[in-house]
Amino acid sequence: MRIDIITVVPEILKSPFEASIMKRSIEKGLVEVHLHNLRDYTTTNYKQVDDYQFGGGAGMVMMIEPIDKCISKLKSERTYDEVIYMTPDGETLNQKISNQLSLKGNLIILCGHYKGVDQRVRDHFITKEISVGDYVLSGGELGALILCDAIIRLIPGVLGNETSALTDSFQDNLLAPPIYTRPADYKGWKVPEILTSGNFPKIETWREDQAYERTKEKRPDLLKD
Amino acid sequence: MRIDIITVVPEILKSPFEASIMKRSIEKGLVEVHLHNLRDYTTTNYKQVDDYQFGGGAGMVMMIEPIDKCISKLKSERTYDEVIYMTPDGETLNQKISNQLSLKGNLIILCGHYKGVDQRVRDHFITKEISVGDYVLSGGELGALILCDAIIRLIPGVLGNETSALTDSFQDNLLAPPIYTRPADYKGWKVPEILTSGNFPKIETWREDQAYERTKEKRPDLLKD
Repeated sequence: MRIDIITVVPEILKSPFEASIMKRSIEKGLVEVHLHNLRDYTTTNYKQVDDYQFGGGAGMVMMIEPIDKCISKLKSERTYDEVIYMTPDGETLNQKISNQLSLKGNLIILCGHYKGVDQRVRDHFITKEISVGDYVLSGGELGALILCDAIIRLIPGVLGNETSALTDSFQDNLLAPPIYTRPADYKGWKVPEILTSGNFPKIETWREDQAYERTKEKRPDLLKD
Repeated sequence: MRIDIITVVPEILKSPFEASIMKRSIEKGLVEVHLHNLRDYTTTNYKQVDDYQFGGGAGMVMMIEPIDKCISKLKSERTYDEVIYMTPDGETLNQKISNQLSLKGNLIILCGHYKGVDQRVRDHFITKEISVGDYVLSGGELGALILCDAIIRLIPGVLGNETSALTDSFQDNLLAPPIYTRPADYKGWKVPEILTSGNFPKIETWREDQAYERTKEKRPDLLKD
């Protein structure tokens, strides 16, 4: 998989790709991530990427021309499965969308910043609009990181033990059951006896029950799907 | 506001705090962000922070002791309003929660990693569990970044123009209307005439209509609240 991220603040995106699972998946050659600074695609002397809104109002708008130039250059080099725009009014990301996108070959992710991009960018270049949640962020960069992480960890070979991703919350429409590790007794707080019983079929049943109970209590909406 | 983030991979969190709005809010003294490496709170020689699950199963579990030590040290130094755990089965973050948290004084954010933390940490130390969305990430670090960004930009004085945050999506239960900037005609794609009319009351009405129509089409659920 190849992911091209277009942004006006590439420095935000640096460290998360240089640590943990995203770093290792890049080192293993399972995914390539390329950051593109939109300022490299401007034609004005002062590298302008944003301008005032037509009709007035607070907040700057990202201009269409540098975005057009950047996307067009990338598309001239290879075919992309999706050109994604990160925006709070996009389709809300969930595990199903992450699963689907993890099967793609080449993705472009455009990060909005300031007040967002000129609507004509969305109308003419974007094939998919994604929101990571119902809250407003300074820009699409953190959303792009979330999207990359959610997708990349699902690529086969990225996680050491593939069953680990399959038992995560949401993969089976259930929240994960409670988990415990040593010590069995910490300041008088003990782990449930069943988990130290060695009776694995019973442990499995207990976990299933706990996952169901937890989902029913915290997220009954997940059980309706 | 002061935010203490507890993590096993502090390097993930570095660059986003060194750029854009989060950087400027720290420089302005409006918020302090402190990263704590959980490995500095271990008692074993090899700085162990995780261990196998009781009852078997894939994925490591973060141990209670280093977390207890870190949180207890912080709490001995000042009072915290919330000790937040980032987890996919927590309460889903939205703009209302962000608004509420932006009014707090001191927050601890604990990032889960690997399979998550020992359940006893959640039972005894955590006052609030937050999820950034219905998808699974490699760890709570990116979620913590999202939470910090969503909160910090709402602190008065952080955004240059405070009305800018007030007209964002979700603040009034409506998605934002489309926005445009120069040029008025790009390759034949024109901005809506109303926006270049100079008739500001009409522009205002057009924007309200567009925001409502967009919300009705994309997110009718927001209109029901």
